[in-house]
Amino acid sequence: MEKKPLQSYSAAELSALLKETRQAYDAFQAKQLKLNMARGKPGPEQLDLTMPLLNALPADADPISESGDDCRNYGLLSGITEAKKLFADILGAKPEEMFIGGNSSLELMFACLQIAYVKGIAGCKPWSQQGEVKFLCPVPGYDRHFALTEYFGVEMINIPTDENGPDMALVKQYAEHDESVKGIWCIPVYGNPTGIVYSDDTVRAFAALKPAAKDFRIFWDNAYCIHHITKTPKKPLTINAACEETGNTGIFYQFVSTSKVTFPGAGVAAMNSARANLDELEKHLGIQTIGFDKMNMLRHVRFFGNAENMRAHMEKHREVLAPKFQIVLDMLESEIAPLEIAKWTKPEGGYFVSFDAMKGTAKRIVQLCKEGGVTLTGAGATYPYKNDPDDSNIRIAPTYPVPAELTQAMELFCICVKLAALEQLTK
Amino acid sequence: MEKKPLQSYSAAELSALLKETRQAYDAFQAKQLKLNMARGKPGPEQLDLTMPLLNALPADADPISESGDDCRNYGLLSGITEAKKLFADILGAKPEEMFIGGNSSLELMFACLQIAYVKGIAGCKPWSQQGEVKFLCPVPGYDRHFALTEYFGVEMINIPTDENGPDMALVKQYAEHDESVKGIWCIPVYGNPTGIVYSDDTVRAFAALKPAAKDFRIFWDNAYCIHHITKTPKKPLTINAACEETGNTGIFYQFVSTSKVTFPGAGVAAMNSARANLDELEKHLGIQTIGFDKMNMLRHVRFFGNAENMRAHMEKHREVLAPKFQIVLDMLESEIAPLEIAKWTKPEGGYFVSFDAMKGTAKRIVQLCKEGGVTLTGAGATYPYKNDPDDSNIRIAPTYPVPAELTQAMELFCICVKLAALEQLTK
Repeated sequence: MEKKPLQSYSAAELSALLKETRQAYDAFQAKQLKLNMARGKPGPEQLDLTMPLLNALPADADPISESGDDCRNYGLLSGITEAKKLFADILGAKPEEMFIGGNSSLELMFACLQIAYVKGIAGCKPWSQQGEVKFLCPVPGYDRHFALTEYFGVEMINIPTDENGPDMALVKQYAEHDESVKGIWCIPVYGNPTGIVYSDDTVRAFAALKPAAKDFRIFWDNAYCIHHITKTPKKPLTINAACEETGNTGIFYQFVSTSKVTFPGAGVAAMNSARANLDELEKHLGIQTIGFDKMNMLRHVRFFGNAENMRAHMEKHREVLAPKFQIVLDMLESEIAPLEIAKWTKPEGGYFVSFDAMKGTAKRIVQLCKEGGVTLTGAGATYPYKNDPDDSNIRIAPTYPVPAELTQAMELFCICVKLAALEQLTK
Repeated sequence: MEKKPLQSYSAAELSALLKETRQAYDAFQAKQLKLNMARGKPGPEQLDLTMPLLNALPADADPISESGDDCRNYGLLSGITEAKKLFADILGAKPEEMFIGGNSSLELMFACLQIAYVKGIAGCKPWSQQGEVKFLCPVPGYDRHFALTEYFGVEMINIPTDENGPDMALVKQYAEHDESVKGIWCIPVYGNPTGIVYSDDTVRAFAALKPAAKDFRIFWDNAYCIHHITKTPKKPLTINAACEETGNTGIFYQFVSTSKVTFPGAGVAAMNSARANLDELEKHLGIQTIGFDKMNMLRHVRFFGNAENMRAHMEKHREVLAPKFQIVLDMLESEIAPLEIAKWTKPEGGYFVSFDAMKGTAKRIVQLCKEGGVTLTGAGATYPYKNDPDDSNIRIAPTYPVPAELTQAMELFCICVKLAALEQLTK
């Protein structure tokens, strides 16, 4: 049947297409696939790129840091000097405003929230004693961010996002007029799941915020800052540069990691913030640990040498990932676009494609995919409380499957998108 | 002057000895030493023993765990199977009751407290909503334990310790009759700083506790379980065996790490508890991290192979450490013992000697040592709130300095112990 906007179909045509699509779905189910597109995991071929890292700190290596400290022993809560320089270079930050953590930036974000909740920051009472506490959550967003704020009983407020980033008028309205609003989740470059890059105006608007609450912080999760899938990446304004302009340098906590540069389980996470913020956090972090793994920091620094080499390493990831994203986008373009029942992002980096299905069909699509042998991120996961008011958004994670499997998975996905739409239209 | 009990000295003799001791102190100060005996850090020669670990997971290694999981990628929150087996073997626990963490057991203890404080455990309200919450603290004990409970505003109660462990009648009294008592800090083997090993009766008394609070847990920090400095180590009853006997298997969280087996900054920490406890903790831990460093777990497992080899590795540490402890004990025996102004422990393992000076002189001794060029753990640090009611206990940490420096440091220490006592007696 010719592909055209679904809304132009007659009842008879819809019925015929539903039948045809059901048959295609049944045929797929018979294949008994078992594929997983649920999480933003690198594929094994990406992990192989990093194996030489394991030889970067051998038994005869010098374990002494630039600062003269023995990386094998206790000490240096904030990490080793050379790792601070490397990550500062990546972020456009100052080395003295870096804190190097363990293998997980999520863990650092959790620590920041926990400190505000248990002890309080910036002279404010602990959140646990402040009554209602709120956080702004640009949607669609990252489920693990939302899980962190939910853990501490923080009320989450949806903020719509467009191609330039969050709705900054709304962010300003909340942040500057409601003292119970304590922060906002941001993924400024290649958002999870949208893939969008905040415009310079958006970054400037963040840097110009004058929050009502002294303990308001922008949680600037720069997880994908060097994760380009084009050869000509954009160079967005950094939060550091923007805040230097406004003098609002204490407003953000910035996070980054090598989880998707080297190994997701065994990378290095880092944090960047004004010195006064880090001083306050370190006072508390020094209670919960004596320090993070400095040998793994040293291993990473010895492997990369400098930020330029780390960026070059990301080129290899791009070569693996770009074709996978192309498979997803090509398939959506040929199978779904003509029907005009959905829209999706066309990211230039990151790990996801954000797909907006016909309203009210996302859960059904995910269920159909699951029963057809492909696990997707749960519908709703991209919203606080797993509650997508439109039941529309689905996060597509194309990175883990090999291309042949991804093609199959996307074939099934497109069938399910159509099937769910047709079921709804013929109800 | 002949060495004899200080209390048998005449006023004139005391005065003469004070003068002589001051001269010795002044002579020492002139040397302008700069030594540090503050923390329980392994020395560089111990760290060198572990350098081959760095080749145990090279670039051509198979990164796949026994379970078939890729250790380079996300997943396996509770750690890899082979690490669970290794640590279970060390502790006399079941592999399925192990949780493998990051580089810090302190971080795991913090997480357990944080979960009880923020979310509540065992169906109880979060501690943050329970009003007064208390913890039992055998003294002298580990300053970082006390800092953890203090962080969460937990009231700490001193429990006296003798050569068999904490005063179990008192522990029982508090734990079984006060619902606000939520736990107790224990270092069952080679206590920090006492070096004592809990007697089997003490372990049995712990296993027989029937706490008033459902969210009471014994924090069993087995940091030094294989850190012997004699060739014929005791084989104390394990908490697991004792709790199997009583059926009280859910009462403890046990902690262990390789911080002082391999590298303090880059080892592996683990936790052991009843499955139901771990299930509850993992539900919360899975919010704050996707998982810990499985490559470092794998590196450790590949390096050691099994628990027997890990114990053999500890023999090498013993060879380095036993002579250092001997220096401390010999010096105290010859310089201080005859004066009968102090007592101290003679540990068979661990990292410390616990020294009880003449009451009211510990702070003065630490100050004198500092001004003489030797930094000790702060007086009072071994008590909650850094408050030693007798101002008597000092933690001696002989592991980091090389023997020649340790000898010098102990010479100064003995001079300062005498000087402080003489100052007090001649006041």
